[in-house]
Amino acid sequence: MKFTDHIDGRVRDRALTTVDLAATFVLAIECALTGVRADFDLFGILVLAFVGSVGGGVMRDLLLGEHPPAPLRDWRYAALAVAAAAAVLTASVTLGGVGTFTPPIAVDIFEAVGLALAAIAGARKSVDYRMNGSSIVVIATVNGCGGGILRDILCARVPRVLHEDFYATAALAGATLMVLLMARFRLRKDIAGAIAGVSIFALRTAALLGEWRLPHLR
Amino acid sequence: MKFTDHIDGRVRDRALTTVDLAATFVLAIECALTGVRADFDLFGILVLAFVGSVGGGVMRDLLLGEHPPAPLRDWRYAALAVAAAAAVLTASVTLGGVGTFTPPIAVDIFEAVGLALAAIAGARKSVDYRMNGSSIVVIATVNGCGGGILRDILCARVPRVLHEDFYATAALAGATLMVLLMARFRLRKDIAGAIAGVSIFALRTAALLGEWRLPHLR
Amino acid sequence: MKFTDHIDGRVRDRALTTVDLAATFVLAIECALTGVRADFDLFGILVLAFVGSVGGGVMRDLLLGEHPPAPLRDWRYAALAVAAAAAVLTASVTLGGVGTFTPPIAVDIFEAVGLALAAIAGARKSVDYRMNGSSIVVIATVNGCGGGILRDILCARVPRVLHEDFYATAALAGATLMVLLMARFRLRKDIAGAIAGVSIFALRTAALLGEWRLPHLR
Repeated sequence: MKFTDHIDGRVRDRALTTVDLAATFVLAIECALTGVRADFDLFGILVLAFVGSVGGGVMRDLLLGEHPPAPLRDWRYAALAVAAAAAVLTASVTLGGVGTFTPPIAVDIFEAVGLALAAIAGARKSVDYRMNGSSIVVIATVNGCGGGILRDILCARVPRVLHEDFYATAALAGATLMVLLMARFRLRKDIAGAIAGVSIFALRTAALLGEWRLPHLR
Repeated sequence: MKFTDHIDGRVRDRALTTVDLAATFVLAIECALTGVRADFDLFGILVLAFVGSVGGGVMRDLLLGEHPPAPLRDWRYAALAVAAAAAVLTASVTLGGVGTFTPPIAVDIFEAVGLALAAIAGARKSVDYRMNGSSIVVIATVNGCGGGILRDILCARVPRVLHEDFYATAALAGATLMVLLMARFRLRKDIAGAIAGVSIFALRTAALLGEWRLPHLR
Repeated sequence: MKFTDHIDGRVRDRALTTVDLAATFVLAIECALTGVRADFDLFGILVLAFVGSVGGGVMRDLLLGEHPPAPLRDWRYAALAVAAAAAVLTASVTLGGVGTFTPPIAVDIFEAVGLALAAIAGARKSVDYRMNGSSIVVIATVNGCGGGILRDILCARVPRVLHEDFYATAALAGATLMVLLMARFRLRKDIAGAIAGVSIFALRTAALLGEWRLPHLR
């Protein structure tokens, strides 16, 4: 594990932090857009962007036992979430209602990118912590979907993850692929992560565009 | 503590794992039935069954500081949750709508069995971790009710635990009984757990059948 | 750190425990009043008072890695929550509907006092655990607002923190002030905490009475 050191019992992995920060930024944009569309006020949008973008990473670190969680310890996460929300709000004011005019598919694309980045961050950090395959897949899925679940709970609505069939599934499939690539094909975690991330984004986007649905039962 | 070893700082307790897995299976059936009745689709039902059945155990392990929580580390929990959901779905399709025709009381009985098993698992694991009496009772109650609270939050409704008066109370009373039996009467945790589990189920079922209610105040 | 010892790796800080217990009592009164107004029954009110009053402290201890969290380990928290709920219920019955007749501003004042006490408890405990400034501010805010968020999620409504603009902001500003007073002006944590606590209460109350609002955007 060339790029991974342990400091004070914590994992230090620069590529991981980069992916994690990128996920935070993208998810914060998506949550800020959601907040604008739901007619929240300035502060509500800031809180929603912060909770929705770092929520998955906080859950991941609580599951891994890293205290306090990186997204709350490192000021850059909060700064990126605020910057993303500010960008959305500025655009919304200057362009006369970005929120209202943003096509829903654009928000969904941001969410798909954020899902892929966050799931890969979760998988990679679990690998750094030497978790078993089962834990890696679950923690990656929680990292990918956790922020969106908190976002929807704060908006008092049924989380998307329950009625979008290829959302958690995409994260789960990508993380499983990453574990397989590393365990069977001995790929390095950088390459396995990149392949898995692209797969998650492709699967999620295909499901969005093709409106893939699993059947209802009743 | 004859049946308990510690491996890597974690508790190893086979009877505990058996009870925990049984609770997961029963609660997953109950949550899958709830999902069918709420007209969720295939994937929503799977997620609901997984979150609702392992949620209490995950909260318990986070409170006890076991990282990652056993239900996310051990693939058998997820497998049982999926198997339970698959059984409900198969029955629903072949029998033409199990969800619609299942009498609510049957769902409630599954929930009562799951509550008793999960609460006892929580109490026993807290004993294994040498928690004090107050913590044992609280953690057992969280283990018993936590999954159901998450299930209801995901369904965007007020959790049952708030308006079913003898739900958390039953878990609380059973865990208190178990602590008393072990501390005062020096019963072994196997026997104390069995007595407490039966008491929780009996109290919950009596409250269900008798429609016991505490008064409203306003 | 004269008043702080470590026992079993846990922080021992008597002033902290006092502030934490006071926050629990005040927040439990506020949550019990909320439960009465929402027409919950006896048991729902008890659960709401318990979860809403200790929720922030439990989240804080999970973030700090103290297992099990102090509010679940120490029976005095639960006892105070139950006592507060019992006081509200007794008053409600004897006075003929305290809940119905309590002016909303009175509930808000209890909430403001609880917010200030809980945020200061969170900041002080983070200082005791030698967290960095960024973590202290976030953990103090979570401690201050966490219980109220859980209370609103249990009531299946959008949390107040999202539409009350000077709620989380007040906790955030107060915790930042406390960190500045300690780091720049070398004030002791007792004095810095007292100043920060009064500031949070003053800011929150001013925002309530003046009906301060940030603009909506759409």
